[in-house]
Amino acid sequence: MVQRPDLAVSPYQRFLNVEWVRFEPGLAELRLPFREEFLRADGSDWYHGGVVAALIDIAGDYALVSQVGDGLPTIDLRVDWLRPARRGPLLAIGRSVKVGRTVCCADIEVRDETGTLVAVGRGTYATPK
Amino acid sequence: MVQRPDLAVSPYQRFLNVEWVRFEPGLAELRLPFREEFLRADGSDWYHGGVVAALIDIAGDYALVSQVGDGLPTIDLRVDWLRPARRGPLLAIGRSVKVGRTVCCADIEVRDETGTLVAVGRGTYATPK
Amino acid sequence: MVQRPDLAVSPYQRFLNVEWVRFEPGLAELRLPFREEFLRADGSDWYHGGVVAALIDIAGDYALVSQVGDGLPTIDLRVDWLRPARRGPLLAIGRSVKVGRTVCCADIEVRDETGTLVAVGRGTYATPK
Amino acid sequence: MVQRPDLAVSPYQRFLNVEWVRFEPGLAELRLPFREEFLRADGSDWYHGGVVAALIDIAGDYALVSQVGDGLPTIDLRVDWLRPARRGPLLAIGRSVKVGRTVCCADIEVRDETGTLVAVGRGTYATPK
Repeated sequence: MVQRPDLAVSPYQRFLNVEWVRFEPGLAELRLPFREEFLRADGSDWYHGGVVAALIDIAGDYALVSQVGDGLPTIDLRVDWLRPARRGPLLAIGRSVKVGRTVCCADIEVRDETGTLVAVGRGTYATPK
Repeated sequence: MVQRPDLAVSPYQRFLNVEWVRFEPGLAELRLPFREEFLRADGSDWYHGGVVAALIDIAGDYALVSQVGDGLPTIDLRVDWLRPARRGPLLAIGRSVKVGRTVCCADIEVRDETGTLVAVGRGTYATPK
Repeated sequence: MVQRPDLAVSPYQRFLNVEWVRFEPGLAELRLPFREEFLRADGSDWYHGGVVAALIDIAGDYALVSQVGDGLPTIDLRVDWLRPARRGPLLAIGRSVKVGRTVCCADIEVRDETGTLVAVGRGTYATPK
Repeated sequence: MVQRPDLAVSPYQRFLNVEWVRFEPGLAELRLPFREEFLRADGSDWYHGGVVAALIDIAGDYALVSQVGDGLPTIDLRVDWLRPARRGPLLAIGRSVKVGRTVCCADIEVRDETGTLVAVGRGTYATPK
């Protein structure tokens, strides 16, 4: 059983201030509390897409960490922004799709606090030796 | 001729602190000075992938803004992290691949200060009405 | 209620010889019987990746046709080949993720006859006017 | 120097009937002559997207074969269909972006006989051991 990693060991994750919701074999759920610095534009209440992309990358990575026990460099990632993510916390669920000898694959969804799906991601990560 | 947009109108872009290098029809080049908050892990000198992804999204968007004159919501984006991006500034060049009535396509590359290619991106953006 | 489209109106779909399994609002399931022409290499029993990619594109498209009632040009598509697809029929399930005014998003999975997941796809398609 | 591979060892490549134009270190250029079976729909003169996706996958793979000397399984691929590809031959150029110990990256463009860019691709391939 892999121990739940400490999110605060990463300077960028401390800036984002992501929190654990669940960490189970093949699944990682994270909560991102809102910060003013996440906004796309002054006077807008939409998140910048880059914040959502980072959250997706992180949730996919930890979903795989739960199975391989170690950090995995992201090789490539696709993000689809489906709807505007507005001021308020976001929830990201990463799920392991494949754990291979060379690479792993994860699928990620991001919802707002009303449960609306705002973005999805799919990525390839390098399996640690 | 589209005016070079002000990067500081966006709270997240102010956090990233991206700067203009070039803004020409079909091309946007941005410089990202290094910040400690961009690091992947304490004691590492690698950027967090989420920062590079945000830079790619922004450079692709502005490459298209140079042709359509208005902000374009990103529909989807692929990022390939090719090599570790280490402590130091990054340069991102976004290039317009297609400007369509419904969607646009941009291609982006990110280099470190030695000129080494560290990441590439390709994205679909919604053409403003 | 959208009528189940005739797969045989397309020369390439006739070559592939895809068959309907299910056509429901937001879901399209297709069966691809095996053909020798689908093999990757003489003496191998693996499908060529390009056949699997085409099946994914088609299943995603019809999942959205079930909701918008008309063919949608694919804008972009990501395919992840997770495991070798071997000689034998393949089953593809496309699911609608989002139907928007400008673009739609679909998610697709491909399984072999033992139910093993061999590939996944995610694509952006243009909503017909 | 890697020998130019024989395209006819693959049943699916024989169906597509792809031909060599160039095979150089880091670059593979292929020509796809038109066939009626490639059409998207009866009465249309557009290629089916799945044919273009296969051509992209093949050109990216051979661009990397030119450097690693052996076939590379495709891990994942993004395809952007930019404009309709109409009846007539297609030219695909694959270029190596990165050759790594674990994975390689290739970039691909497809043009019609007038030189118009009709699609682009970017993929991750597994480096042979």
